[in-house]
This record gives sequence, C-alpha cells and structure tokens, in this order.
Amino acid sequence: MRGMPVYRILEKRLRGETNDQEEIRALIHGFVDGKVLPEQMATWLTAVTLTGLSEEETLWLTEAMVASGKTLDLSSIPGIKVDKHSSGGVGDKVSLITVPIAAAAGVPVPKLTGRALGHTGGTADKLESIPGFRVELTEDELIDQVRKIGCAFAVASKDLAPADKLIYSLRDRTATVASLPLIVSSILSKKLAGGADAFVFDVKFGDGAFMNSLEDARRLACSLVAVSQKAGKQAVALLTSMDEPLGRAVGNALEVAEAIEVLKGEGPSDVREVSLAIAAQMIRLGLSIPNEEARRKAQELLTNGSALEKFQRLIEAQGGNARVLEEMDLLPQAPERVEVQATASGVVGSIATRRLGLLASRLGAGRGTGSDWHPGAGIRLLKKVGDPVTAGETLGILFSPRPVSPQEVNETRACFDIQQAEARKTDLIAGLVA
Amino acid sequence: MRGMPVYRILEKRLRGETNDQEEIRALIHGFVDGKVLPEQMATWLTAVTLTGLSEEETLWLTEAMVASGKTLDLSSIPGIKVDKHSSGGVGDKVSLITVPIAAAAGVPVPKLTGRALGHTGGTADKLESIPGFRVELTEDELIDQVRKIGCAFAVASKDLAPADKLIYSLRDRTATVASLPLIVSSILSKKLAGGADAFVFDVKFGDGAFMNSLEDARRLACSLVAVSQKAGKQAVALLTSMDEPLGRAVGNALEVAEAIEVLKGEGPSDVREVSLAIAAQMIRLGLSIPNEEARRKAQELLTNGSALEKFQRLIEAQGGNARVLEEMDLLPQAPERVEVQATASGVVGSIATRRLGLLASRLGAGRGTGSDWHPGAGIRLLKKVGDPVTAGETLGILFSPRPVSPQEVNETRACFDIQQAEARKTDLIAGLVA
Repeated sequence: MRGMPVYRILEKRLRGETNDQEEIRALIHGFVDGKVLPEQMATWLTAVTLTGLSEEETLWLTEAMVASGKTLDLSSIPGIKVDKHSSGGVGDKVSLITVPIAAAAGVPVPKLTGRALGHTGGTADKLESIPGFRVELTEDELIDQVRKIGCAFAVASKDLAPADKLIYSLRDRTATVASLPLIVSSILSKKLAGGADAFVFDVKFGDGAFMNSLEDARRLACSLVAVSQKAGKQAVALLTSMDEPLGRAVGNALEVAEAIEVLKGEGPSDVREVSLAIAAQMIRLGLSIPNEEARRKAQELLTNGSALEKFQRLIEAQGGNARVLEEMDLLPQAPERVEVQATASGVVGSIATRRLGLLASRLGAGRGTGSDWHPGAGIRLLKKVGDPVTAGETLGILFSPRPVSPQEVNETRACFDIQQAEARKTDLIAGLVA
Repeated sequence: MRGMPVYRILEKRLRGETNDQEEIRALIHGFVDGKVLPEQMATWLTAVTLTGLSEEETLWLTEAMVASGKTLDLSSIPGIKVDKHSSGGVGDKVSLITVPIAAAAGVPVPKLTGRALGHTGGTADKLESIPGFRVELTEDELIDQVRKIGCAFAVASKDLAPADKLIYSLRDRTATVASLPLIVSSILSKKLAGGADAFVFDVKFGDGAFMNSLEDARRLACSLVAVSQKAGKQAVALLTSMDEPLGRAVGNALEVAEAIEVLKGEGPSDVREVSLAIAAQMIRLGLSIPNEEARRKAQELLTNGSALEKFQRLIEAQGGNARVLEEMDLLPQAPERVEVQATASGVVGSIATRRLGLLASRLGAGRGTGSDWHPGAGIRLLKKVGDPVTAGETLGILFSPRPVSPQEVNETRACFDIQQAEARKTDLIAGLVA
C-alpha cells in the first residue's frame, strides 16, 4: 500500500505534519467513491481526533465535503440570506420563533432543518406535528417560498454534502464523534451547501447539550465562526444554556404549542429571551444594521403580532392547517397523560436534562423508537430550576401513546433534584462570538 | 454504536486512558472473528501509533494475538529451547551459522523462519536454494528433528498467531506500520506461539534496516526484551549495523555459499563476528553459563568444525543435498553475470544498502517479483565501506536469470558512494540489551 496517494496522506498526518488542500480533497472524494477504505478514513479521523486540525485544514475538509454533493443556488432571492443552526438541545423550539421574526423584519430565511437525534428534538419533526405541514420541499419550492413570503423550513436534501453522512456514520462506529474540527466540518458542510450568506449559530452548553461545558461550547462557537468567515460567510454564535430544558414543553406538538404562545407574547420567558437574542442577530446580519436597532426590531415584531402572522403564512405555504394558531387542540394529543408528583419538599436545584430528553424520546417523541412514536408524546414541566416544591405537588406531566410505566414515573421524578439550599441558575445567554 | 463493548474500548483509548487485559483480548478476538470492523481496529491502531502502549498493554496485546491461534508445545524436547530472531537486513545469513553453532553446543534450537520481505531476504528462501531442502515442516517433524539432532529450521505455520497477519495487513493499509508497540507485538506474538523458552533478538539499525537510527533500534531492543521477560521468557537483544550489507553476498544461494565459508572458518569477518556474538548469547541462555564461557564455546565449535558438521546433519535431516558443503557449484547459479565497474577513484564512503537490497530483489532474489525469481540471483560485493577503489575496478557482480539492463548496472554503481576522504565505519555491534 506504500506509494498509494492515500498512504502518503495518512503517513504525513501520523508524522504530525499537516495535509494540504489537494490531499484532503483526494481523501474525502476517494472515501465517497469507495477508493479510500473505511479503515483508511478511520485512521485519518482518529489522528484528527487526537491531534486536531488547523482552521485552514478544517475549511478544506468542510469544502471537500460540500463539493461531494450539490450546493443550493439562492442567487435568485434578493438580499442577504440568513440561516440559523442550533447545536441541539431539549425543548429547543427557538427556530419556530426566530425564523418568523427575522422574516417579518425583511430578512430572507431559507432554514434547513433536521430530525430528532438522540436525546434532542428536530425542528422538522416538530413542524410535521402541525396537520398537513410538509417539510420535504424541493429546491425550487424552497426558493419560491422564500421569494414569496420571506422564509421556509426544509429538510436538507440528501444531495447536500453527502460525505457528511458517510463520515458521521464512520465516526459513530469508531468513537471519533467528539472531535471539534470534525463537529465543525459536519455542521458547516451542510450549512455551506445550503447556500445562505450568513449564519447564526446557537451553541448550547450544559447537561442537555452535546457540549457539556461552557468552555467546550465556546471553543465550538469560535471555530464555527472562524471557519465560516474563512469560507467568506458572515457568522455569529450565541452560547445558550441547556442546563435545564428550554421552556416547559419537550416533545413535538407540545413544543409547537409553546412556540405559538411565545409568538403571541405569552409563554415561558427563557424561550422568549433566547429567541429574541437569536432573531436580533439574524436581523443584524440580514439587514446590516446595528445590534441595538436589530434587537428593538425583533422585540417590536414579536409584540405587534407581525411574527405570528408570518408564521401563519408559513404554515399555509407549506400545506399546514394554520387554524392551530387559534385552536391549539387541533394539534395531535397523546392518549396517555400521567402526572409525576414530588415526594420531597424544597427547591428544584437542577434537572437531569439529557435523561429527561431521552425519556421524552422513549415516551414517543423521539425517532427510531418504533411503534411508540407519536407527535403528541413528550413531557410538560410544571417545575423548573429555582422553583419551590412541596411534596405531593406535580413536577411534570408525561404524554405518551401507550401506558406509562411506574418505572418511567420514577425515572422522571429522579430527574428533578430537590434540595434545601437555594438553586444556582447558570446564565441563560452566557456569551456571544462575533 | 455507543454502548457496544468495542465503542467503550475505543472511547477510553481516545480519551487517553489505558485498556485492560479483558478489553484488549475482546478487541483482538473480535477483529479475528469479524465482529470488530476494520475501521474500528484501525482507530485503535492509530491511537496506539500516536500515543503508545504501556509495556503491560503491549504484553496483553501480544498474548491476545498468540491466543488467536495455536502454540507449539515443545515440552517433549529436553533443555532450554532457544529461538533467534533478526529484524531483517541485506545479506543477513547469520541464522545459517548461529543455529548450527548453538546446536553443536547442546542448545536445542527450534528456529522459526520467514520469507523475503521488501528489500530484505528470508532464511526460508535461502535454505530452499539448497537442492531438496524442505522448510515446510509439520509440528511433529520440527520437534522430532530438534530431539534428534538439536536444531531445525521451519517456516512458521499459518496457525501461529493468525491475528498478526490480519493486523499487519491492516497496518500496511493505514500507514500504522512504524509503531514500536505494534512492531514488538507482531514479532513477539509469533515467537511466543513458537513455544521456545529464550529468545535472542538481532535488531538491525542503519540504511538497510527497518529501524534506520540506532536510537530507534535500541528502543525496539529494549521493548522486545522487556515484554519477553514480562511474558516469562529469557531474552537478550544485540544491536548490529546494517549500514552496509552483511558480508559480500546478497541473494539466496550466494548467501548460503558465504555461510558455508564462514562455517569452514573462512568468509567475511563481519559475518563471523556478528554470528559469534549471537551464537554466544544463544549458548549463554540455553546452557545458563557465563558470557565469556559461552563466547569461547561458540568460537571453538566454529573453529573445530562441529558447527559445520551440525549444519551437514541439518541439511540431511531436512532432505537437502549436503554435498553442497564440499561442491558449492551444486548450488543454483543464475545464467547472467554482469560486473559493475567504478567510474571514479577514491574510497567507498557508504553503500546505499536498502536500494541494493531492492535491486537484488528485482534481479530475482526477492519474492513477488514474478518470473524473474531465481535462487541463484543476487549481488556479490567486491568492495565494501572503507575499501580503496580505482576507476575501472569491479565494485560488484550482478547475478540474474535474465539479461541485466544498463540501467540496473548504473543503479548498482550509484549505490557505492566513492569519496576522497576516509570512510567512517559505524560499529558492527553497537550494543547489547539484556
């Protein structure tokens, strides 16, 4: 095997040298074409996991992944197109609120969305709980709709950065998922292929996030912004807390209902706060206006009902029943509904967010759980961190298409840590990387 | 894939933790059984290449590789069985001399041998150039012969440490060949499966060796000795120079002829010196006697013809024509014979040993060179490092079954660096690790 190009590429990497753009492109395209073997790609990914990649190499990797498929051509949409990405969390319905706000401000938002993964939900699954809503748009449908109403949600086509899926599957088999440059290239390859001009990244940290520590989240945020900018895009990242679920609803239809509440000026304040911060950044980049002005605009469009109206037009444009905005019981409801009571008194000190996300997934909110899947499944939290609790009070309600086991009730209860001391809340928005 | 045993094993390794014996065994056996995928094994091998293995882990890896196949049971042979291993070189016919010497001293030597690899020769190929000689012995034949005459040469059966071959092939595909613990486990797994009680390692350094620097060779020697001892074996390693070919003959029959000369008390002094040093260590371990006594014994058995007589009995026992010892032209001879003349005068400053080894291989001495293969092919060196040369003098003679090209003559000439200054010879035996 010595003498083959891939051998030399690996040999350089293992000697601690960097690879040039040509080599990285040959490696990625060779892997997609089946000329580079899985074990050879795994060797490169392992070396990267252990020794890192420079920003330049990360860009080359990302660009090679983009070049493995097609790129959306959004040039027929006037203005600066802004896409938004969340690193994934529990109860994260922020896209449902920010996209209508930004579009109401006149920012074109072709939002590419994903499905639920592990303990986290996916915006596509949430939107599909609205009766009739179609997220599988063609490229033309996506472009037409953004031209007409200013925004659209579409599941990323399999033709965008197909190398990402192949590489991700290999990383999943080889325990090389937790590598910063590989995470960055995975996220960015799909975003760059999506064709937008500017990106707002919501990088979550805490127990319910993929990055548990704020430090790791900041590293990811810095790298996402730096590599995006190297690729000629505008980019900004917010660091937001996932130390407890965002809002009170976890599960597809439950979260849509909560998002509608926020768009009506009601709903939990944490969801509103994060949504306004992200929408403001989308407006700032899309309209090229100062931060404070963008922030005021976002606030105003949420308060005066413009964002809600935009969401209504979006639902209609994508085939959904917009009457859900007024009659929320048109949203699917899970037949089983079980309250979980506290057995101790005190204050909610913390919530095991990741475990709660997995539990919601098992109750029927997640993907790949087979026959239990139900758009109405999930958890509604009645208590959040810092709330006082008396024994016997309801902590949360479980929704499922099938009977909930006592075991699951106990597991839910165990996710709430009831303590005597005062709870220490982490900052909801811990930082911004621009 | 999270949750699978192999995932946890890889995750620990990638986090910088060590693996325990159980995990390493599961990994190797899973790989041999096809349950651990090539990309998963490649991940582990890459992490080991980049971050190393402890001596203990190296032993566990080696033992897991041994347990992947059968182990020779030499218990029916009385005495301390000694095997000898060379890390490979050009013109390295030392085994042909040391095995008869040690056996003549009463040390039982069940010598497992290999085939030519890359630019280096293989003892099995050399012996097969003796008409009738059989190196493919069964386990019973090997044991019977050692019991009868004290020594035997046998190609290692495919049943010994089969994991090694699979792992080596994967390392060859993934550029993870040059990893010290992986080299050690590869060498030792086959030696341990061979069942001997004590090992003498000839670790070569220099241009014609796999380890070019003395430092790397010493590291290999130290690790081989340490891990062997951890495995409950006696072990010693010599560091010998491969900065020029050993002796003057490179090629199978040519090397057998030179070994016979040395066994007759003639031949090149460097071959004799290395052979005596190694034979002395084999005798020291096998008879548990002091170094100086072992050295004297080796010298005496070579001088008084006992070693030659032992070699004769060995050839006869393995079906070979022992008359070659007296009539060397019974050995196969290549039809083409071309002298290479110097075009400049001066002193041979260095010899490109690796290139010369590859050239000999191409002329027909190596494996996998197709129709050119011939037991009589190779190179005889008339000049070695330090020798004065006058333009027009013969540097070496090329032997081949097919016409030698002018290109090959020029390449051979270019392997000799003729300089005006005095040559700097490296020490032939640069160290000993015991």
